[in-house]
Amino acid sequence: MALRSWVTSANDAVSDFPIQNLPYGVFRHRERTRIGVAIGDQILDLHACASHGLLAPLSEEIIAACSAHLLNPLMSLGPESWSALRRHLSALLDADQADTQTQGRTEALLVPMRDAAMQLPAQIGDYTDFYASIYHATRVGKLFRPDNPLLPNYKYVPIGYHGRASSIVVSGSEIRRPCGQTKGSNPEPVFGPAHSMDYELEVGIFVGPGNPLGCSIPITEAEQHIFGVCLVNDWSARDIQSWEYQPLGPFLSKSFATTISPWIVPLEALAPYRVAALKRPAGDPAPLPYLASPSSDRDGIDLTLEVYLQSQRMRHTGVMPTLLSRANLRDLYWTLAQLLTHHASNGCNLRPGDLLATGTISGPDEGSEGCLLEKKLNAEPIRLPGGEVRTFLEDGDQITFRAYAEKPGLPRIGLGECTGTLLSPYLPHIHTGS
Amino acid sequence: MALRSWVTSANDAVSDFPIQNLPYGVFRHRERTRIGVAIGDQILDLHACASHGLLAPLSEEIIAACSAHLLNPLMSLGPESWSALRRHLSALLDADQADTQTQGRTEALLVPMRDAAMQLPAQIGDYTDFYASIYHATRVGKLFRPDNPLLPNYKYVPIGYHGRASSIVVSGSEIRRPCGQTKGSNPEPVFGPAHSMDYELEVGIFVGPGNPLGCSIPITEAEQHIFGVCLVNDWSARDIQSWEYQPLGPFLSKSFATTISPWIVPLEALAPYRVAALKRPAGDPAPLPYLASPSSDRDGIDLTLEVYLQSQRMRHTGVMPTLLSRANLRDLYWTLAQLLTHHASNGCNLRPGDLLATGTISGPDEGSEGCLLEKKLNAEPIRLPGGEVRTFLEDGDQITFRAYAEKPGLPRIGLGECTGTLLSPYLPHIHTGS
Repeated sequence: MALRSWVTSANDAVSDFPIQNLPYGVFRHRERTRIGVAIGDQILDLHACASHGLLAPLSEEIIAACSAHLLNPLMSLGPESWSALRRHLSALLDADQADTQTQGRTEALLVPMRDAAMQLPAQIGDYTDFYASIYHATRVGKLFRPDNPLLPNYKYVPIGYHGRASSIVVSGSEIRRPCGQTKGSNPEPVFGPAHSMDYELEVGIFVGPGNPLGCSIPITEAEQHIFGVCLVNDWSARDIQSWEYQPLGPFLSKSFATTISPWIVPLEALAPYRVAALKRPAGDPAPLPYLASPSSDRDGIDLTLEVYLQSQRMRHTGVMPTLLSRANLRDLYWTLAQLLTHHASNGCNLRPGDLLATGTISGPDEGSEGCLLEKKLNAEPIRLPGGEVRTFLEDGDQITFRAYAEKPGLPRIGLGECTGTLLSPYLPHIHTGS
Repeated sequence: MALRSWVTSANDAVSDFPIQNLPYGVFRHRERTRIGVAIGDQILDLHACASHGLLAPLSEEIIAACSAHLLNPLMSLGPESWSALRRHLSALLDADQADTQTQGRTEALLVPMRDAAMQLPAQIGDYTDFYASIYHATRVGKLFRPDNPLLPNYKYVPIGYHGRASSIVVSGSEIRRPCGQTKGSNPEPVFGPAHSMDYELEVGIFVGPGNPLGCSIPITEAEQHIFGVCLVNDWSARDIQSWEYQPLGPFLSKSFATTISPWIVPLEALAPYRVAALKRPAGDPAPLPYLASPSSDRDGIDLTLEVYLQSQRMRHTGVMPTLLSRANLRDLYWTLAQLLTHHASNGCNLRPGDLLATGTISGPDEGSEGCLLEKKLNAEPIRLPGGEVRTFLEDGDQITFRAYAEKPGLPRIGLGECTGTLLSPYLPHIHTGS
């Protein structure tokens, strides 16, 4: 029988945060910034747990890491420490294991989620974004190169690029429509608000211990360097992107904002949902040896991903967010381990708290596109409840990602929400013009 | 008559660090990490100056910033504070202004450069690399697209991309030749040590106060956000780059290492060497209004840049480093102010300590190429003293950049050295293969 928590909201079938999940985040409450663990609709304050002696059996370095204001110290400790802490927290919150006294002492350290403001979970030293969905790469490629959608390197190289760390914001932050250069049919480009605003549905991994500069991380050890996963919306201005991206890749079309969900779900919590990774079609090359995983049936994660849109008009008229797409993490061409190993394969040092995102996750079928750009290939435009039509995002649109893993006999594990509302551009300092 | 310091080595005509320079850096000496100012062959310890009361007339926040272990707090204060500190330090070190007692107290806080180990000057939150030399872009473009070297966006968009912050190292650090995927004439790529190792001669700017997310920086205010300049070597593996770079730009071909010089020369020190920026040829478009500078005759900086190579054999046989190229910062198509304003034009927040590099700086003529890749267009390969020939770098090669501004009647201002030696690859964890 599955574990149950004495925090009753955690046993609710629709909660993202049963006792089997126990994701980490950083929250602000009563002017204090603390590391917490999500359980049902509550947050267990780990700093308070440490100072009240509830973490006493754990090592000093784990207790110190739980008392920090960011998750970087905990991320640096590695999987043995993560497992020890997770087992201990599970016992504290377990309806069967915790005695009345332990439950009482722990209960006093819960903070209702509604009273807390979630923060960025870590200092993100570097942010890297990949391009790991072959369905996404193929659809986007078709728009630019109808006869030759997939470039020759795609099936060999986990393509990625460095993103901007400074403009990563936590779920709920408002997003300003950026200004930038765009090139329409006139000979000259113009500078002004971007028109082709898009979201990108992605999963992020936070790096654990990482590697020293000049060394690499073998594929067999890659998952020991993954602290956990979250949702990522790599907001994109497609009209800025198409004009700026050659030859060095996307830059200002992405760097105005990236939203992440606040809760980092440990890889251990997702263990029951591991599946074989996407099977490479016959004729595709095998991964080069440095990217070849010895395991074959547990390299993927069966995690359903959803995109919802609620326009300003829908919000004002009480219409619920509408589902735009549903995709699955298992459909990536490259696994999370392959992305991490490739990243470090040149000796590039990954540091605790670095964020690696998958790139847009799309499935093979209509309805599984991870961004609006791909939906341009469909015959019909997007019709919202209430009659609005969308090609790209309008000011006031709120985009929400959700993700969950489920399996008969086990409670659902959710990643929580990654949400943001697009605002009109900030103009005072802008010389629009020419 | 030009100022002279009582630190006599600062008055030496070949010193990079006369009293007119006063660059900031972070050094380690007797197990302490301190902010210092270079003067001749000495470093003035600013932490010691603060604790001995030598900075007393300055504001508390300047004094606190000088006592930090990194330059980020000082960078955040802005140009008025930078000027106040610079005037004060100049007075302390000036042979005419400093009285005997001040000189004695200050002299006791000097550390000989030879006894100090220079460190990275700041926590670099994000590193961005541009492509601001039209001569470089044109030569590199010719190699890939002989008929159409310059892409249509080049004269409108200051092209740039996000670089990797974690692998930035200070001058003197050894550089490991990276491994990576390369594609020769065989149908399949291979993974192994890169063969086409190159340097890139660049200038970096450290960001001062910066801008909040969602706001921008007008071109008229851009230089108020430039704390100072240094040299940057953006080491590149050309064979990895040509296979990986489409469609998202360079990634592992660059992220294995970037070297910067340790001393940050204030923009104020370079004021006497300001010149008109490169004149756009007739027929080129004017910059869009948000990038149009109201000043026209002082947007550039006349800074000579040099690349030296010394092979292992040259070192062993006592042969001095040989000059490979000489270029000038004034030859960039985009000014430093334009790079910074463009970067923030989409609302991307720039933070104190962020590093923006120009991209490879090349001039129009043979002998002014800022990287080896460009030299492939020349009729003759590179011949080193002693008979060695180079197309790309060999293990053991040491690359050193130097830079200086000079003008009749003024002492020379130098940026110091940016140097690194290429080592053989680190292989224990590498599955070379197939």
